[in-house]
Amino acid sequence: MAATKTYLTGIQTSGMPHIGNYIGAIKPALAAAREHDTLYFLADYHSLNSVKEPEKLRSDIRSVAATWLACGLDPERTILYRQSSVPEVFELATILATITAKGLMNRAHAYKAARDRNEAAGVADLDAGVNMGLFNYPILMAADILIMEADYVPVGRDQVQHIEYTADIAGSFNHLYGDSYSFPIPKGVFPEGEASVLPGVDGRKMSKSYDNHIPLFLPENKLKKLVRRIPTDSTPVEAPKDPDTSVPFQLLAQFATEEHTAATRKRLEAGGMGWGDLKNELFEVLNTTFGPMRERYEELIAPDSDLDDILEAGAARARERAKATVAKVRAAVGID
Amino acid sequence: MAATKTYLTGIQTSGMPHIGNYIGAIKPALAAAREHDTLYFLADYHSLNSVKEPEKLRSDIRSVAATWLACGLDPERTILYRQSSVPEVFELATILATITAKGLMNRAHAYKAARDRNEAAGVADLDAGVNMGLFNYPILMAADILIMEADYVPVGRDQVQHIEYTADIAGSFNHLYGDSYSFPIPKGVFPEGEASVLPGVDGRKMSKSYDNHIPLFLPENKLKKLVRRIPTDSTPVEAPKDPDTSVPFQLLAQFATEEHTAATRKRLEAGGMGWGDLKNELFEVLNTTFGPMRERYEELIAPDSDLDDILEAGAARARERAKATVAKVRAAVGID
Repeated sequence: MAATKTYLTGIQTSGMPHIGNYIGAIKPALAAAREHDTLYFLADYHSLNSVKEPEKLRSDIRSVAATWLACGLDPERTILYRQSSVPEVFELATILATITAKGLMNRAHAYKAARDRNEAAGVADLDAGVNMGLFNYPILMAADILIMEADYVPVGRDQVQHIEYTADIAGSFNHLYGDSYSFPIPKGVFPEGEASVLPGVDGRKMSKSYDNHIPLFLPENKLKKLVRRIPTDSTPVEAPKDPDTSVPFQLLAQFATEEHTAATRKRLEAGGMGWGDLKNELFEVLNTTFGPMRERYEELIAPDSDLDDILEAGAARARERAKATVAKVRAAVGID
Repeated sequence: MAATKTYLTGIQTSGMPHIGNYIGAIKPALAAAREHDTLYFLADYHSLNSVKEPEKLRSDIRSVAATWLACGLDPERTILYRQSSVPEVFELATILATITAKGLMNRAHAYKAARDRNEAAGVADLDAGVNMGLFNYPILMAADILIMEADYVPVGRDQVQHIEYTADIAGSFNHLYGDSYSFPIPKGVFPEGEASVLPGVDGRKMSKSYDNHIPLFLPENKLKKLVRRIPTDSTPVEAPKDPDTSVPFQLLAQFATEEHTAATRKRLEAGGMGWGDLKNELFEVLNTTFGPMRERYEELIAPDSDLDDILEAGAARARERAKATVAKVRAAVGID
């Protein structure tokens, strides 16, 4: 409808993001939101494939929504909504399933990875533990994207296949029903250059699955403790140190100003700066960066906050688009 | 909610039913509707798996709905609705997919039959031509049933697996989330004794796929022509005839009174009644049986009839139940 191009991003609702997610996903997405027409949705029914504890799912969803808002997402400018608030998505997925070859799903990466894990573990039934939510996920994701008539979908390079599948499914639909209605074919938008990969406290890539992450909105005292516990070697205070092999320095470099980072590099290389001093600096920088966001996060996460109202307002805007698309699709296929 | 038991029946929307469908499905279903609390739905999104011509799908759906009403379905007593008018069904299907093992779908009869056909035809990719609508259909059917909290589902014996799958999926849900909400486990209701199988005009079982069927509401002149064209042998008028190997007689026996049928049997066995006479009698009986229904059918199928209003009123009642179920299910899984 709009002449401007629409960017759509799905957000996993797997609990409070960490500072690696902030650098790698949230910060660039917020920058994009200032430039483009954006829709960001919380893919809560995707999480249901793996999270069977209602309380955890509920609090994970709220936590992720509050995080993005606290980090600066402007819900007036960006349409922020829960996937589960737009039931038209599931109807569209049902329609898309009727034109999607099962063979396409057989070749989906996430499904094949699950089979490979079974094979590696010597499990005879390669489909063991695979639920239909996982198997159908490429169709649900295609519905998420197509229902908003999105033009661009910013994704990581490991998600190229999702965009290819969505374009493929949209193409099948357009081929069959294009006389009446055609989906715009969405394009993936990939990060330019090397993605910033933050080290976790143990030096490996920061990831919840390694339990080496620094959650975005730890209370100040817990953040301090966690930073203090980052392992360092026993190089004495006065000895010169290599910043480029130091986890605390690499983390500092992501959040401190360039000047601050350069000065700290010099002090480490010159000797005289201990790991303890470096960690104190890192804590201060993190606390300064995230302190105000944490306050807003804590307001939003409170049970009586305006979080639900914000999400409902976003859902109402998203549903308007979704209803319009589904009406056109229904008319095209003959269900009207 | 209601203390009385609910019966739910899905109706395929594959165009105007024939007189074999009337005897085998519609008539017993209408008898059941006078005794029980019933919901009958038009499974239109199921048809979309095979019908990609919007005009055909559209007119098939209207034709089937008009047929059931013309045959005597009372839309005040029975909730008659289109599956596509209750979008909550597709959301529930999405939820059920997250707890349904893919292995269960691999073993579904309809899917396995499609693979067997490929194998028999020497097609290397056994999934060739299988779309995800077909593969997912057991989940969609489970959602159709469970969303209405149906207690009983009258089905043919060849559909036992659908009920077993639905019970299986409901059981998985109840096991995981039963503290908060449990689906009633639906039971299949199977036809008592031998099902009446009507012969088609060529003597084989009456079926659209054999193109040997007598559509329910043929205009009078076309009905007469079709009955006249039923093949018979060249036994002369005066010779005795065997009613039990005569297609027109077997059809007559399903629609004429017992007295009428017995008298005709005698006349055939005695000799002196020609096949032409028998066919005239069959035409009269069919025309008397279906004439008044045909009139009502033609009223309903007209573009400005009250058909759409009837279906919308049914959909409103069905959605009330569906929304209540989905709200309970969402709360149970943590999406609320």
